[in-house]
Amino acid sequence: MLSTATRDKLKQVSTATLATALYKRGFRNQYIQNVHPIAFKGENMVGPAFTLRYMPAREDLNPVSVFQDRAHPQRKAVEECPPGAVFVVDSRKDARAASAGSILVARLMVRGAAGVVSDGGFRDTPDIAALAIPSYHQRPAAPTNLTVHQAIDINVPVGCGDAPVFPGDIVVGDGEGVIVIPAHLADEIAEEAVEMTVFEDFVTEKVLEGRTILGLYPATEEQTKVDFAAWRQEKGR
Amino acid sequence: MLSTATRDKLKQVSTATLATALYKRGFRNQYIQNVHPIAFKGENMVGPAFTLRYMPAREDLNPVSVFQDRAHPQRKAVEECPPGAVFVVDSRKDARAASAGSILVARLMVRGAAGVVSDGGFRDTPDIAALAIPSYHQRPAAPTNLTVHQAIDINVPVGCGDAPVFPGDIVVGDGEGVIVIPAHLADEIAEEAVEMTVFEDFVTEKVLEGRTILGLYPATEEQTKVDFAAWRQEKGR
Amino acid sequence: MLSTATRDKLKQVSTATLATALYKRGFRNQYIQNVHPIAFKGENMVGPAFTLRYMPAREDLNPVSVFQDRAHPQRKAVEECPPGAVFVVDSRKDARAASAGSILVARLMVRGAAGVVSDGGFRDTPDIAALAIPSYHQRPAAPTNLTVHQAIDINVPVGCGDAPVFPGDIVVGDGEGVIVIPAHLADEIAEEAVEMTVFEDFVTEKVLEGRTILGLYPATEEQTKVDFAAWRQEKGR
Amino acid sequence: MLSTATRDKLKQVSTATLATALYKRGFRNQYIQNVHPIAFKGENMVGPAFTLRYMPAREDLNPVSVFQDRAHPQRKAVEECPPGAVFVVDSRKDARAASAGSILVARLMVRGAAGVVSDGGFRDTPDIAALAIPSYHQRPAAPTNLTVHQAIDINVPVGCGDAPVFPGDIVVGDGEGVIVIPAHLADEIAEEAVEMTVFEDFVTEKVLEGRTILGLYPATEEQTKVDFAAWRQEKGR
Amino acid sequence: MLSTATRDKLKQVSTATLATALYKRGFRNQYIQNVHPIAFKGENMVGPAFTLRYMPAREDLNPVSVFQDRAHPQRKAVEECPPGAVFVVDSRKDARAASAGSILVARLMVRGAAGVVSDGGFRDTPDIAALAIPSYHQRPAAPTNLTVHQAIDINVPVGCGDAPVFPGDIVVGDGEGVIVIPAHLADEIAEEAVEMTVFEDFVTEKVLEGRTILGLYPATEEQTKVDFAAWRQEKGR
Amino acid sequence: MLSTATRDKLKQVSTATLATALYKRGFRNQYIQNVHPIAFKGENMVGPAFTLRYMPAREDLNPVSVFQDRAHPQRKAVEECPPGAVFVVDSRKDARAASAGSILVARLMVRGAAGVVSDGGFRDTPDIAALAIPSYHQRPAAPTNLTVHQAIDINVPVGCGDAPVFPGDIVVGDGEGVIVIPAHLADEIAEEAVEMTVFEDFVTEKVLEGRTILGLYPATEEQTKVDFAAWRQEKGR
Repeated sequence: MLSTATRDKLKQVSTATLATALYKRGFRNQYIQNVHPIAFKGENMVGPAFTLRYMPAREDLNPVSVFQDRAHPQRKAVEECPPGAVFVVDSRKDARAASAGSILVARLMVRGAAGVVSDGGFRDTPDIAALAIPSYHQRPAAPTNLTVHQAIDINVPVGCGDAPVFPGDIVVGDGEGVIVIPAHLADEIAEEAVEMTVFEDFVTEKVLEGRTILGLYPATEEQTKVDFAAWRQEKGR
Repeated sequence: MLSTATRDKLKQVSTATLATALYKRGFRNQYIQNVHPIAFKGENMVGPAFTLRYMPAREDLNPVSVFQDRAHPQRKAVEECPPGAVFVVDSRKDARAASAGSILVARLMVRGAAGVVSDGGFRDTPDIAALAIPSYHQRPAAPTNLTVHQAIDINVPVGCGDAPVFPGDIVVGDGEGVIVIPAHLADEIAEEAVEMTVFEDFVTEKVLEGRTILGLYPATEEQTKVDFAAWRQEKGR
Repeated sequence: MLSTATRDKLKQVSTATLATALYKRGFRNQYIQNVHPIAFKGENMVGPAFTLRYMPAREDLNPVSVFQDRAHPQRKAVEECPPGAVFVVDSRKDARAASAGSILVARLMVRGAAGVVSDGGFRDTPDIAALAIPSYHQRPAAPTNLTVHQAIDINVPVGCGDAPVFPGDIVVGDGEGVIVIPAHLADEIAEEAVEMTVFEDFVTEKVLEGRTILGLYPATEEQTKVDFAAWRQEKGR
Repeated sequence: MLSTATRDKLKQVSTATLATALYKRGFRNQYIQNVHPIAFKGENMVGPAFTLRYMPAREDLNPVSVFQDRAHPQRKAVEECPPGAVFVVDSRKDARAASAGSILVARLMVRGAAGVVSDGGFRDTPDIAALAIPSYHQRPAAPTNLTVHQAIDINVPVGCGDAPVFPGDIVVGDGEGVIVIPAHLADEIAEEAVEMTVFEDFVTEKVLEGRTILGLYPATEEQTKVDFAAWRQEKGR
Repeated sequence: MLSTATRDKLKQVSTATLATALYKRGFRNQYIQNVHPIAFKGENMVGPAFTLRYMPAREDLNPVSVFQDRAHPQRKAVEECPPGAVFVVDSRKDARAASAGSILVARLMVRGAAGVVSDGGFRDTPDIAALAIPSYHQRPAAPTNLTVHQAIDINVPVGCGDAPVFPGDIVVGDGEGVIVIPAHLADEIAEEAVEMTVFEDFVTEKVLEGRTILGLYPATEEQTKVDFAAWRQEKGR
Repeated sequence: MLSTATRDKLKQVSTATLATALYKRGFRNQYIQNVHPIAFKGENMVGPAFTLRYMPAREDLNPVSVFQDRAHPQRKAVEECPPGAVFVVDSRKDARAASAGSILVARLMVRGAAGVVSDGGFRDTPDIAALAIPSYHQRPAAPTNLTVHQAIDINVPVGCGDAPVFPGDIVVGDGEGVIVIPAHLADEIAEEAVEMTVFEDFVTEKVLEGRTILGLYPATEEQTKVDFAAWRQEKGR
């Protein structure tokens, strides 16, 4: 369960800061490699993962008529993705064909999904860019997903961009990319990342004022700690 | 021959929709992989392919002085590309050196070419971005083409981004990428894609209004067909 | 030593033109492959290279606490990079983790560095985009550099994007990418590139007026030379 | 169900011939890309697929102690793989760590498995080479699978070397590599492949005797058909 | 024209030695990257290049029935390849499907071809390994070439493994790989390579006897030249 | 310092077993990716690392005449590599040109080096295969190293096949590949690996006798421990 408090915290921190918080706990592969926002809207994507797994398509099983089946896993997954969730597609890093197009992404938006991520590519990306739902992928891919992908499993553990993704893991996307926080750590990682962000904002301000990073970042000098305490006081953070 | 009617239709549809129309006929590899517009101008690129084939450059054959030869295939191709055609360069997906620069692209524009595509990279891309000709490539490549490429054949069948391209095939580019329609299918694909687009616009509107995709997309429910007919009536499409 | 005159010349020419000037002298690999500006500010980056070499990180040597050491090569390099220099990071083309983040880049900016380049990726790229320092990389990489990279050597000869970079080589970046000029050739390459640029501007103007490239580019026709001389006279270049 | 007759047929034909028989029916992606036999023993591997799916490993879930759990999917899969089956591992084409080692492969051998295939790499390959069980992979990978892989699903549809593999599909390996026959086509493909092999053996003999391939392969000349009929008669095939 | 004398010389030298002789003349890309012998027979492959160019296959043009056309470029090329020539296939480095199989290679052998090279893969490689014709490729590829490749041009300049290959260039393969000598340089390169080989044999002998490479390789010490002269005398080379 | 006892132990264990021992201590990247023995002689390569770092070659600095300089780092490194050491070359995973050839490898052998490793390729590999020195690389590369590589640093920390290698680290190669043991852990890793090997040999024997791996591997059943103790007694290990 993602609490409102944690969601709010994760809205304000960067994937970079989260990556460091995870790194401190021994996690090195939670960043989804090689995806970027289609059109970053200025606000972080935050939500629990709801996954769709693709396997390589077999020709006889993938005529366009398959979508007439209401139980087709791709369509079913879109209709089952809970409000607030991030729809994560394991496309085996293959962007030769689309993971989905603007109609499905629009449907996810309307249903209240917090965002969509594929380690392959979406199609209709100019339309997706105009939708009010955060979308992350590798590169545009016009061909229909049936060309290369066959939806096979809904909400199972998957890989996405070489990162492990378990259903319910907390997925955060910013202007750079997407990171996956193991569900049981979301609260403490969010808390720590907010604290780190306050400090990084202080450091950035000081660096822009001309201070050296030595002793400042990390705060190995006593004076840094004193200054930071004063700065927090002043800023009310 | 690309008719004006077909050209106009292809101006209004997406590469994604065309890819699906081609997929229905068994074509899976017509999308040029891994190219994107340098600066999309909002209007589709449409035209028959006029090709240039590069092979790996051999050092003794590629001093800069080769361009003093008016018959050099790269320069000759630029001067021979017919108005309305799309200039397609087979760069063997190698973007370590340029396929061409802004001067040649400007010349193609002035000569009336409908666009340029390379599965390698162009140079002078900030200048190309300012030209009124659609240009698609993999990534900027400042080094002169002689570094890696040697122009060898004009208007022969080639590969571009793993897609087969025959001279005269109809090449369409949009905000996502580029697709190649076999010449003999251009009319019927264009016609079908326009029809598909009307339906997809209807579906998008309904999805944004909150309707489920099940039964709607594809239109497996009778009501969808009824609603779509009414919508077309109303919209005059 | 990079003279002001040469720096000024290099501010006005493109990496494409420089690549050709280098190619004429037998240099084929001076363009840093697969990097691009994070947010091009309209002005070229120019400066001598100051390098940092990364090697693959070993887990026991890279807890986050390493940055408490003021002599850590990454931090030390940032504090030692001379004003006017371009900070070039050999990240072995590995963008799975960051080469640096916005705080270090800000510090380099404040210290007067002319720019930063990595053949891996930076983190905090939305913040870096807002800084007034040219920054080039492969793609955003949120994970801390410790995940994959260990800073090991300061200002030694390195590879960056498959290009050789010696400390003191003149590094130039524009809207496309980055090129490395061997130090001893900087003056003559700059001079030649300025001259080439004048000619290319003339050619571009003529091409946009409708002239064929044959005989014009390169100037194999006598008339071209006459016209160019007149044009220079007129433009005062 | 794989009949003994079909198994026997598939023992005598090559993956190349099977690929062509599949191609005739519209299947283009059934060959597992980029795997080879560790030590081909001269006899084809034939059996229904029993699959294991790996996802990227998460550090906290993969200490070496996980194998103390008898229900760990990797160990469970090995103990459940039916005699006669081919154990197919979806390693996401990642050979940085092992898919399995010699002890598990030995156990599969003893349990009667028909072979093992991974699109990643095995470890202890010198020992595996000495075992009497066909084994196919990409390249040796000494690191324990926990480094990169986490076993997550047993006997579900997977991808292996970009080929779709459904449990029960018939997997055939020869001296070149491995191909996957959709279960429902195994009998007819086997039958056709045997017939094709007879013809190819005839053609090979004629080619080695000096006959041109034109008219012979394929048999577009009447004489070829006559000769082939006689040859079959003579050879009793 | 490849003289018998030059052919004989090229039989005795390595691709490594030839690469150095070419490098001295400014050629850096004549080695065909990433191919190896299927089963090296101990004798070099030497002959002029006869090329076949593949483009990406388009589905409607590549049913298996295409081979019923005697003019199909793949079959035509095999029947036209002159005795003594090396059959070089430009497969765009794509080994997902076969460049050719054992029957065509056998036919080339019977017709007297000096060898076959593809930068993709051959099928039926266990059979090819048994044929008395040198064969070089990237990796085995069981699928029929129609899956991915369409033969389009015979004996035109091509790329093979990133090397430029012009018809008539002299192609040499040894136990390591394949190199392409520009036709007009074959005689002098062969001559020089033989001389270099004599010296390298001398050096190897001395190194195995314990001498340092400094002063010996290259022969910067006068004594080395004296010793080498004596050694040649003694060996009669 | 590598003791004789540790060297002897490391001679008897596999890189796979060492990888697991390292994994238990948190090391995930010590296996050199994508190298293999040129011709495994049946005995492990063991020795401390002595490194050579290559950077990308710049044309003006790499005529063949550079080797006339006795201080050229490549030649100097070969003459300075201590007896018993493993010569590790950081070739940036680039096998387009040779890291070294048979003469240098022969010299290293004569000087008593324990082996050579490159994450690029060696040339003259048929000759190297015949030498009595373990040699590991990615693939044969005939072109002279000057084509792509410039030797720049001797015995500094480097990357090799994505693994960190510090001078003095203990490098072990077997029939599969090469692993790097941090120097300070060599004794304890060797000791543990020998113990693990004894247990794995026991397990293998039991598995071949038909025992299930559950409870046996790892030894979670009490009976396994009893049996193993008895087996050790019996075997005297």
